[in-house]
Amino acid sequence: MARVVVHVMPKAEILDPQGQAVHRALGRIGVTGVADVRQGKRFELELDGEVSDAQLDELAATLLANTVIEDYEILREGEQ
Amino acid sequence: MARVVVHVMPKAEILDPQGQAVHRALGRIGVTGVADVRQGKRFELELDGEVSDAQLDELAATLLANTVIEDYEILREGEQ
Repeated sequence: MARVVVHVMPKAEILDPQGQAVHRALGRIGVTGVADVRQGKRFELELDGEVSDAQLDELAATLLANTVIEDYEILREGEQ
Repeated sequence: MARVVVHVMPKAEILDPQGQAVHRALGRIGVTGVADVRQGKRFELELDGEVSDAQLDELAATLLANTVIEDYEILREGEQ
């Protein structure tokens, strides 16, 4: 079965309070060497039929990402 | 600058109401052919120093994932 992965990340110019909270917490467990943390979403779609690139783009832009503040990336994995 | 990506996904045996909500919504925009949707998190860590694999594992298990209900995967990208 083919899989499609969609990454949704806050745009570079958008503040990311969740990522910043993780970044601050790193000090508590003694981890230095991390300059920045960004937190986004990962969607894994298991396909059992044909889904076109245009449909994937539409569903990512409509359902998965808020394109005002987030960028998305669509990756097809496995056989079509 | 090296980057580390951590994926955090609900364990297979855990219900994923967010993913199920996305799956149901696909019908509204006329997309068939998707059997299942799982929603998780994606963290992008920009490194400016040395972070060991053991530290990455600890921070993922401690700060990024709830290992009772989530699995995580650590991927190093770019040069060390």
